[in-house]
Amino acid sequence: MPGEPNTETAFVLRKLGVTAPELCLELPAGSEICLVDHNELGQSIANRSNYQIVAVIDHHKVGAFETDGPLMMRLEPLGSTCSVLATMFQEQGYTPSVVSAKLMISAIISDTLYFRSATTTAQDKEIVQWLNTIAQIADLEAYSLEMFDAKSDISHLQAKEILTMDYKVFDLSGTKVGIGTVETTNPRFSLEKKSDILQAMEECKHEQHLDFILCCVVDILQEVNVALVMDAETAQLIQTVFGATTTDNQANLGPLLSRKKEVVPPLAAHFAS
Amino acid sequence: MPGEPNTETAFVLRKLGVTAPELCLELPAGSEICLVDHNELGQSIANRSNYQIVAVIDHHKVGAFETDGPLMMRLEPLGSTCSVLATMFQEQGYTPSVVSAKLMISAIISDTLYFRSATTTAQDKEIVQWLNTIAQIADLEAYSLEMFDAKSDISHLQAKEILTMDYKVFDLSGTKVGIGTVETTNPRFSLEKKSDILQAMEECKHEQHLDFILCCVVDILQEVNVALVMDAETAQLIQTVFGATTTDNQANLGPLLSRKKEVVPPLAAHFAS
Repeated sequence: MPGEPNTETAFVLRKLGVTAPELCLELPAGSEICLVDHNELGQSIANRSNYQIVAVIDHHKVGAFETDGPLMMRLEPLGSTCSVLATMFQEQGYTPSVVSAKLMISAIISDTLYFRSATTTAQDKEIVQWLNTIAQIADLEAYSLEMFDAKSDISHLQAKEILTMDYKVFDLSGTKVGIGTVETTNPRFSLEKKSDILQAMEECKHEQHLDFILCCVVDILQEVNVALVMDAETAQLIQTVFGATTTDNQANLGPLLSRKKEVVPPLAAHFAS
Repeated sequence: MPGEPNTETAFVLRKLGVTAPELCLELPAGSEICLVDHNELGQSIANRSNYQIVAVIDHHKVGAFETDGPLMMRLEPLGSTCSVLATMFQEQGYTPSVVSAKLMISAIISDTLYFRSATTTAQDKEIVQWLNTIAQIADLEAYSLEMFDAKSDISHLQAKEILTMDYKVFDLSGTKVGIGTVETTNPRFSLEKKSDILQAMEECKHEQHLDFILCCVVDILQEVNVALVMDAETAQLIQTVFGATTTDNQANLGPLLSRKKEVVPPLAAHFAS
C-alpha cells in the first residue's frame, strides 16, 4: 500500500479477514513498478523517476504521462480499475479466488458508489455479476450500505485526514488543483467540521504549491456534491466552471458524484482555454 | 491513411490485391479518433487537439501523452502493434479474414524485420504462426525478402522522400530530435545519395525547428546501422551517446536495428540527464 487504508477499505479488509498489504513508500532505486488505478506523477509514489514503470492498469484520464521505453498499458473507460483487472482475468481464462472476487466486487462498489456514479458502465455491472458467481455475496445492496457507512464514519479523524483520505492533485494545463472527495451517507459529519477543514485546505494549498484546492462532500444516497470553498478566487472559479454560487464557504455543485468524470473535465476544459 | 504508403507497403497492398485506405489529413472538428501505432503529438494527425482521442493501440514508449477524460489504451511491449491487435482478436474469439491475416503478418514482418530486430518477442513469433494458420503463406522467409527488396527500391525517390519515408520527431526532455530510418537490403542506394540527403536533413531541421536530425541507414541483412550526420554538433552527440566516430558525415552505430528500442532510449536518457 502507498498509504493507510481509509475506513471503508479497513472495513472491507476486516470483514473479509484479509491482512492489509505492507505499507510501501519507497523502493530500491531501479525497481520495476506497475502503476495501478492512477498514472499522473502527482498521484504516484514519491521520486517516481527512480523506478522503471513496466505497466499501467488504470481507468483515469492520462495526465502528462511519459516513459523512456515501451511498456504494457491497459486503460479502459470503466467505472473501476478492478473491472479492467477482472476483464484481464477473463481473457486469460483465470478464475479469481473467493476472497479475491469479494475484494474486487468491493472495489467496484466503492468506485461506482454501487452503480450510482456517472462513471458506471454496463461492463462494470456484468463483471460484478460474474465475480459474484464466485464470491456468493447474498445481498450486494446491503453489503454496499455497510461499506458506505464505514466510509462515512469519520468521527475519529482530524480535519486534514478528512481532506486527504481520497485526495488527488491535478495538473490542468499548468494550473495545479488539489481535490479531496468525502463520499458519505452522512454529510453532516464533515460539514460540522467545516472551519477546521477549510484551515487544513489552506495549509495543504500552501505546502503543495497549489493554485486551487477543493474539498467535495458527496452525499452518496442523496446524490449531491457540496464543495467547500476556501476563498473568493475559488468561489469565482466555481461560479464560472459549475455555475454554482458559494455561501458560507459552501457551493452546491448538484449531482456530480464522479470527480474523474464530472468534476475534473470541466475544470480541465476551463484551464485549457 | 495519414500519408502515402512507402514502397514496402505499396508492394504488400499490390501483392494482396488490397486497395489502399483513403488518404486522410484532416477530419471534422470534434471527431473521435483512435491512435494506432503511435501516441506522441509530433507523430500524429495535424491539429490533434481538435479531435477527441477515444482509444490508443500502440507498442511505442509514451511521450508526454495527455487526455481530457478516460479512454481505452492498449499498449504492449511487443515487436509490432499488429501483434497487439491480433492478441485482441484472440481475446475476443474473433478470427481475422485471410486478407487481414496476410496484412497483419506483413506488418509484423515489417516491424520486426522478420524477427531480426531487438524488439521481437516470443509473442510476435507465436502470433505470426497463428495468423499463418489462416493466411497460409507457404514461405514466410521468401515473402519477407520480397517485402525488404520492395522497401529497398528507392531509386525513384527524391532525397527528402528517402529521409521522411519512415520518419519521426521525438521530444526528449525538451530537445526535439527528428530521426529518419531507411531499412534496406542495399544501403548503397542511400549512401550514393548522401550529399542530397544531408541537404534534405538541413532543410527538414530548419522547417520543423529541430535541435538535431539523423538519418539512419539500416542494413537489414547485415544488421548494421549507419547514421548520416549533418554537422559537428551532431557528431559530438553521436560520439557521446553511442561512442561512434563520424567520418565523411557517416557514423557506424553498430547492430542497432530498432529506432524505438536501441536508438531513441540512449538519446532520451542523455537528454534527461
